[in-house]
Order: sequence, then C-alpha cells, then structure tokens
Amino acid sequence: MNELNVDTSTHSYSITIGDGIRHRLKDFITKKYSSILVITDDHVASLYLDDIIHALKGERIIPATIPSGEGSKSIEYYYKLQTIAMENQLDRQSLIIALGGGVVGDLAGFVAATFMRGIDYIQVPTTILAHDSSVGGKVAINHELGKNMIGNFYPPQAVVYDVHTVRSLPEHEIRSGYAELIKEAFIRDESFLKELLSINVQDVPNNQLIKHLYSGIQIKADIVEKDEKESSIRQFLNLGHTLAHALEAELGYGKITHGEAVAIGILFALQVSEDKFKPSLPYSAFYHWLKRNGYPLSLFNVEIKHLIKLMKLDKKATYKQVQMVLLRNIADPVVVELSDKELEFALQSFKKELNAT
Amino acid sequence: MNELNVDTSTHSYSITIGDGIRHRLKDFITKKYSSILVITDDHVASLYLDDIIHALKGERIIPATIPSGEGSKSIEYYYKLQTIAMENQLDRQSLIIALGGGVVGDLAGFVAATFMRGIDYIQVPTTILAHDSSVGGKVAINHELGKNMIGNFYPPQAVVYDVHTVRSLPEHEIRSGYAELIKEAFIRDESFLKELLSINVQDVPNNQLIKHLYSGIQIKADIVEKDEKESSIRQFLNLGHTLAHALEAELGYGKITHGEAVAIGILFALQVSEDKFKPSLPYSAFYHWLKRNGYPLSLFNVEIKHLIKLMKLDKKATYKQVQMVLLRNIADPVVVELSDKELEFALQSFKKELNAT
Repeated sequence: MNELNVDTSTHSYSITIGDGIRHRLKDFITKKYSSILVITDDHVASLYLDDIIHALKGERIIPATIPSGEGSKSIEYYYKLQTIAMENQLDRQSLIIALGGGVVGDLAGFVAATFMRGIDYIQVPTTILAHDSSVGGKVAINHELGKNMIGNFYPPQAVVYDVHTVRSLPEHEIRSGYAELIKEAFIRDESFLKELLSINVQDVPNNQLIKHLYSGIQIKADIVEKDEKESSIRQFLNLGHTLAHALEAELGYGKITHGEAVAIGILFALQVSEDKFKPSLPYSAFYHWLKRNGYPLSLFNVEIKHLIKLMKLDKKATYKQVQMVLLRNIADPVVVELSDKELEFALQSFKKELNAT
Repeated sequence: MNELNVDTSTHSYSITIGDGIRHRLKDFITKKYSSILVITDDHVASLYLDDIIHALKGERIIPATIPSGEGSKSIEYYYKLQTIAMENQLDRQSLIIALGGGVVGDLAGFVAATFMRGIDYIQVPTTILAHDSSVGGKVAINHELGKNMIGNFYPPQAVVYDVHTVRSLPEHEIRSGYAELIKEAFIRDESFLKELLSINVQDVPNNQLIKHLYSGIQIKADIVEKDEKESSIRQFLNLGHTLAHALEAELGYGKITHGEAVAIGILFALQVSEDKFKPSLPYSAFYHWLKRNGYPLSLFNVEIKHLIKLMKLDKKATYKQVQMVLLRNIADPVVVELSDKELEFALQSFKKELNAT
C-alpha cells in the first residue's frame, strides 16, 4: 500500500493506492456523515457496488447509477443527480462517493461542489486513467460546444485507489490510462519515461502497476499543490490535450478514448517542439511504442481548419490564440502561443507523417 | 460615495455605493479583459444597459438578456448563458458583469463561478434587496425542489452600487429590500434597527438610502469576512429565511417578493424567540411597522405540515431537523434546532395571531 498527501488552499487529503482496499473504505471516512450518496455507472456497479455497500455497512447509503460513457457527463445527468440528492434528503453533512472512472469522478465531484454550495466527496477511481482526474480537484461536465467547459476546482476529502478494480479494464482503457502516465513522465521524470517506454502496457503485473500509478500521481500531486487553480505550472499537465480535446469533440466523445486522443496530441506536441526548439526528443521511440501498444495514430480525416477552430475553444486559449504545451527537453515543458498559420502548417505536416508510416 | 472592502480566502474586493456611479464603471475594472459579458434582465436592460455599454466603450462587450423574475434562476437559463459565453468565445481572461437584482446576480455569478472552472465577475446591483446578495459570494440557481440548492461560494471582483438605479423600483421591491436591511439590524445593530423602525420605506431620500445600504452592507461584509463558507456566524444572516424559503417554494417564486417572505419569517422568529427565551423583543413595534409599510402578513393558507416538510429542505437543516435563527435579544442571534412538534405548535399559534389581527 502506498500513501501520499496533497495540500490544497482549503484542506489536505490523502491518496492511498493498494490492492483490495475498497473493502476497507470505511477507514478512510474520518467524519460522521448524515447520508452517503454513492455515484457510479452501470458497468462499475455490476462489478463493485455491492463491495462498497458492504464496506459501508451501518451508514445511510443511497446508490445512484448513471449509464457508463462520456455521454453521462452532461447537464441532464448533473441535474438528475442533484434531484436524487434532494429527494433523498442529503444535507450539508452528507458525503458523496465517486465510484468509477473519470466520467463518474468529474460528474460526481461537480455535483458535490455545487450541491448546497458544496459538500464533501471521496474519489474511488476504478480505471488507470482516473489516477489523473481523481487527483487535483478539477471537476466538470461537458458542454455540447466543448469538453469540461462547466466546472469547479474542488478537491476531494480523500482518494482511495484499489488497483484490483483496474484489472478488469479492456485493452483500450489500459492504453488510455498509460497515455496520461507517459504524459506525466514526459513533463517531469526522464527515468520514469524510460521505464514506461520499455513496457508493454497490457502485461504489467500488479506490483509494477502500483509503482507506475504512484509515480504518476506523485508528479500530478506535486504540481497541483504548487498551482491549484492552473494559473502557471499546472498548465503543463495539458501536454497533448489541446489537440486531444479538439479530436474528441469532433469525433464525438467515446469514439476514441481520452488517453488515446492524448497520445496523438503528445506525439504532435513532440513534433512541434522539435521544429521549434530543435531538441532531441524521443519522437521515434515514442511513435514505435504507441504502434507496438496498439494506439490509433491518425487525425481521422478531420479537416485541419476545423481542428484549429476547435483548439481555440480550449480553456488555455487566450485572446483567441491557441496555447500549446511544448517540450524544450524531456522534463522541461513550456507554454507557447501558436498563430493559426504555424498551427495549420504543423498539423498538415503531422498528418502527412502519420499517413506515410 | 461610500466605499468598503471585503477580504475573502482568495482575494479582497471593494464595494462602492454612490449616486450615478454606473457611468464610471470602467474605473472599477482594474485588469485588461479579453471580453466582457454583460448579463442583465429585460426590465433592467431597457433602463440601464445602454448606460453600461456606453461606460465600457472600447471593450469587447457581449450583452445577454434574460427574462426578469425568479423563473430565470433555472438550470435552463444557466445553460443558455454558458452557451452564449462559448459561442462568443469568452475565455479565462474574460469578465462577466451582473447588472440587475438578486436573480441576475446569483445566476450570472454562478455562470462566472463555473465557466471554464471560474472567471472574474463584477456585481452591479440595481435593487435594494441585492445589497444583500451581491456581497458575500453566495451564487446559485434554484432547483424545482428548493431555492438556491445548486451553487458555489464565489466572491466577485467588485461591487459597484449605483443608488440611482434603485429609484425606479416598484413599491413591493422597496419593501423587499428593506426587509433584508431590517434583518441585518436585528442581528447586529440596535440603533440601526431603531432608525429603520421609524421610517416609511417608500419615502427615504437618496442620501439616507445610501446610509442605510452602507450600514446593512457593513454588517453583512463583516460577517462574511469572518465566516465565508457559512460554517458558523454567517448562518445568523438566515434570520427569517427558513420559513421564507418554504413559503416562496410553496407559493411559487415570484408570488410574493423574497424580502416580503423574509419579513414574515422574521416576525415568526421573533415570536418563537419570545416563547423560548422570554426576551423583550419589539414584536409589536415590528408588526405595526410591517402593517404600516404594506407588507403582506399571512401564511396564505399553506398547510402547516407541508410547510414543515419544506423547511426541512433548507440548507441549514441537519439530520432532518429544522435549524432556525432566533434572537436571545436584539443583536444576539443563535441557531436553535426545533423538533417537528415544537415547530407545528409555533406555526399554528403564529397563524392564529396573524388571522386575529
């Protein structure tokens, strides 16, 4: 079992990673709550909801299940969950538990942040990808015009990470999670990056997975502690995300996984970084690692001008200019403003490269 | 012109009260913003939107108008405003201005609090009532099951209060505003209370109104500085509100004004306080002041058991018990938990008293 602590502007919380710790969930609830609303999706519910209800025996528990998938991160499900909270008489002394992946975590977190102007919540992530979203307090729902456009910065009371639950993930979800881990390595830790580039993501044993999650979370936690509201270094965590969000928005959420889109985004960022700063980044090693691990490498025939328009909707964009996270070197990120022309040229050459290989 | 300052956990902001200061709005905008979204209602728009647009000449301004009335404080208008913000390419460097009464302030404030996880906003209140809601950072929308159920604590960057705009208010809106002023006096300032009980709210000259608003805001600002998130003394500001919210929910928002409902709630709190603590509160003086000033004094034939059920939906309720703010004396408030039985008895005797007189 591994534990680390995150200090926020309002409180500090612990992140615990271990095998089977969902059964000890009660140990991580340090206050008496009037009710506990457990928000999960139908897929996760069938696997782990009973375990959680059993682990919370003696508490007043209200389970609420949403359909799995990005479509649930909508204003409709947000409002439905608020209704369920009210109908079941949750009050300011109630707790929300987010049991699931990033969709459940973001949505349940935003419900907690805004129900009666904010109540406590605990993240119980069940995917590798959610190691990223469950830490740092970014909660949100999607708007039809952009991902995560409506939300808050609202840190949880605890993150309880049972790696047993991620063993049941399908292959594309494992790829999705490892893309965010490799992102963290790229912006902070060269030896972690080397290790990740040496593995095959589908056959990582549990003890090594715990180690990888711990390293990724440590990087993330350290950054969000220093910049909770994303006014400076937290932006570096968006490496690969400007293009990723644009691709996801265009293809419709759920057509490729978030992490797979991020992987394409990172590769693009490496190419732009090399053009701009001429560093020696492991573009080719990363490209072959992505290929070997089955990541989809394509811009899916999306029109480039349209992609640029979508990239401008990104939350980092200011005064209508796209801001991209680039690397001057491994573990040396920087935010750079790109003109439409530069971006168009870069995307065209990136597209050619993907098509050629 | 009067000015005071409020310190919050994230920043401090100024509140300025003066006659005609809407024309100098630009002086209170201390940063360069990429765009300014001015949110107002159709009634206020017809009176003051042109002044505001003129005062902001040179900025990129997007006006957005909602129908006036509590009905706009809904999830539908909340989402519509988010859409307008996105369609007009607002970014994290944009500003929202809330031009209007409490509905506009609460709704626009909640849009600002959650658009891209939070951007700056400025309150430009145009009612007496909004002296209360524009200060302290409570922003929210209503849920069909309860008022202000979905929201945040999110302080503005400034409050710019032009008392000229409140001169155009209809009589019931002046009553509504003065009810919150008298609430502040009751919980904090006996001499302010005496002064208010001596006036007729419909004929207060401008200079005296500025003084009253300043006194009310000073009390409010002092309390929210000490307890931003309503974990202790800020609850005292809910004097009269538990019954008021229940009445408003039952009658449908907009049937009586918020302040008129609060006035009934305060009168009820005085009665319960006298029963519970036997202090000598000015129940009768307050009752006659309300009568003289045309406040509606009735429970509108709402079934008492149903009222209690609604009072339990209040955000202060914990473990399903109603918490009411009572007065041990003028300027000596306390939060007291009441059993359903006590509450029923008190409401019945209050109803009788209202019907008898």
